[in-house]
Amino acid sequence: MPFDMNLVQRGARLRRSPFFDATQRYGARGYTVYNHMLFPIAFGDLEEEYWHLVNHVTLWDVAVERQVEITGPDAFAFTNLLTPRELAHCAVGQGKYVVITDESGGIINDPVLLRLGHNHFWLALADSDVLLWAKGVALNAGLRVEIREPDVSPLQLQGPKAKDVAIALFGERVRALRYYHFFEASLDGIPLVVTRTGWTAEIGYEIYLRDGSRGDDLWERIMAAGRAHQIRPTGPSDIRRIEAGILNWGADFNLENNVYEVGLERLVDDAKRTPYIGREALARIKAAGVARKLVGIEIAGPRIEFNAVKWPVDAAGETVGRVTSAIWSPRLDRNIGYAMVSIAHAALGAALRVDVPGAGARAATVVPMPFVDPSKEIPKQ
Amino acid sequence: MPFDMNLVQRGARLRRSPFFDATQRYGARGYTVYNHMLFPIAFGDLEEEYWHLVNHVTLWDVAVERQVEITGPDAFAFTNLLTPRELAHCAVGQGKYVVITDESGGIINDPVLLRLGHNHFWLALADSDVLLWAKGVALNAGLRVEIREPDVSPLQLQGPKAKDVAIALFGERVRALRYYHFFEASLDGIPLVVTRTGWTAEIGYEIYLRDGSRGDDLWERIMAAGRAHQIRPTGPSDIRRIEAGILNWGADFNLENNVYEVGLERLVDDAKRTPYIGREALARIKAAGVARKLVGIEIAGPRIEFNAVKWPVDAAGETVGRVTSAIWSPRLDRNIGYAMVSIAHAALGAALRVDVPGAGARAATVVPMPFVDPSKEIPKQ
Repeated sequence: MPFDMNLVQRGARLRRSPFFDATQRYGARGYTVYNHMLFPIAFGDLEEEYWHLVNHVTLWDVAVERQVEITGPDAFAFTNLLTPRELAHCAVGQGKYVVITDESGGIINDPVLLRLGHNHFWLALADSDVLLWAKGVALNAGLRVEIREPDVSPLQLQGPKAKDVAIALFGERVRALRYYHFFEASLDGIPLVVTRTGWTAEIGYEIYLRDGSRGDDLWERIMAAGRAHQIRPTGPSDIRRIEAGILNWGADFNLENNVYEVGLERLVDDAKRTPYIGREALARIKAAGVARKLVGIEIAGPRIEFNAVKWPVDAAGETVGRVTSAIWSPRLDRNIGYAMVSIAHAALGAALRVDVPGAGARAATVVPMPFVDPSKEIPKQ
Repeated sequence: MPFDMNLVQRGARLRRSPFFDATQRYGARGYTVYNHMLFPIAFGDLEEEYWHLVNHVTLWDVAVERQVEITGPDAFAFTNLLTPRELAHCAVGQGKYVVITDESGGIINDPVLLRLGHNHFWLALADSDVLLWAKGVALNAGLRVEIREPDVSPLQLQGPKAKDVAIALFGERVRALRYYHFFEASLDGIPLVVTRTGWTAEIGYEIYLRDGSRGDDLWERIMAAGRAHQIRPTGPSDIRRIEAGILNWGADFNLENNVYEVGLERLVDDAKRTPYIGREALARIKAAGVARKLVGIEIAGPRIEFNAVKWPVDAAGETVGRVTSAIWSPRLDRNIGYAMVSIAHAALGAALRVDVPGAGARAATVVPMPFVDPSKEIPKQ
């Protein structure tokens, strides 16, 4: 299916990242759309990019992770209302992976939250308009907050050499940076926030640009610092994130799902001291148990190519769920993925069949996640 | 810039329209993304599709106009809170073009609202998550409503022969259907709502499919009824909508703009009897006057190709605004578009210069909208 990018670019509806010109210059092969913004998908072959990520270091434009910024005298109280995590445990300079929940416990988004000050938060968003949700909630919440989308655009620097590149850029303080913590920095006058986070389970950083006019400068500065470590720009690595058991909001789960269905119950603090949106619903769901669950699966047979249709999953001749993500792992030499299945078929070892379009039915098995255990030695290419 | 659609389609994050298979079968040349869904852009040459629209009849998949459905005992009161229009003037069976406003009067979305019952509304959305906004507002509004995205997917049937095709499908009652009114219908058991609305300023209808499993059936039924009138599938016609002065949310205006800046003040009912979100802000803005305004412009010289960058607009050597949309009108034989300019340069006849990338500075003039007056005879191809 050919695609004429000039058609997509015709109008001004879709926003461009501050790194758009750089991604063009470095040969982005295509773009998707995420938070109303063009999002580079790949620069080369996807498996090549994957091997580069696990062996070297990659630079990835994630400006589409738009921020919602919450400030004002009641910013802490308000932000704490939006999520089941206890934000009293999040220090200034620290981040948390959180879910934003609606009144039914449905997951609106799963951002990385950064606490920049006692009453100053950013939510680095997956693909839904949390700005509108937060503004709507604030309307009658009786709390003094300001909510806006600031001029902030992250990049991901990921891979085993990411630390060396980050040290070359920001100095020795990088060594002391703990997982999900951050520092503020400046490079040639470019204002930044540097976090130890990412979407790869490799060692990695996100570099949040705070001045959209400096995108090109920042990109070239990082590429120059990474040259000695063979840095290259890539898109997202679906292979690596699925190996790591990382979920993709919109594909693997959405507003129709709750944390107990998708294995994110660690993002609910049962001991949280204050009310939050969805608390009562989540307590009910936890007590009652869920009817379906997202599980890791292996799909037997030769390499499959997943597409946008969620393949049906059968057990004993009956449809019991759908595949939400699937991919060939070149490192594990097998097809891995996730399926949302009814709870009766969610146990480890459960035998399933997946209807792969054009390839017939394939045997599948429920397996533990993550597929690649970071504590174990895994052969690299 | 080549684009590999297989990359975009790899994951299941982007939703497919119920008409997706049909658009593939009929040769869609490409897709963009709108409300998290793939949106066919064109099937043939864009000018060819334009001429077909103004001379014959076209079928356009607008399933991306996702609905927010509002029901419950307080649905009228709640929906009336979301918009500056007085919904007491909207009868059951009637629709309204409305803006959804935030507390600052900013435009969150500009849907077509349909009133299906006293307490039953649909909002057919432009590209923002009004579902999240409405749910957020409802949280503390003290009104009994249910808010959800129903299984509803519209098609647009547009062009001078659209009425003949609609009569072939739905019978003589089509003749009595007034602009922005609708009826419920069934075709071969497919549940539908048929409105006299569209995004073209041609005679046209929207056919809202209420059962996503019947997309292919409905598409083929309409294509069969239209065969005698040379119906063909197309994407959106930016040429025709700009000729008509129709705005595109996200491109021509967004949350940063208010109705007074973009010429949509007719969507505010000053005599509205009840409070609504943004009322005080809009009253202040109206009293103070706006600092910038969206105007119609003609850009001199040969055909231009607009891209995603909003071209700078200068007057007397100073940047005074940005082009938001621009296109070559083959019927008017000139370049037309919109620019958001500071109020000092917004008067009819004001002389501007547009910086066209790769084509240098071009003279431009502020002109009345719409560019094509539907009451005047215009030569057709």
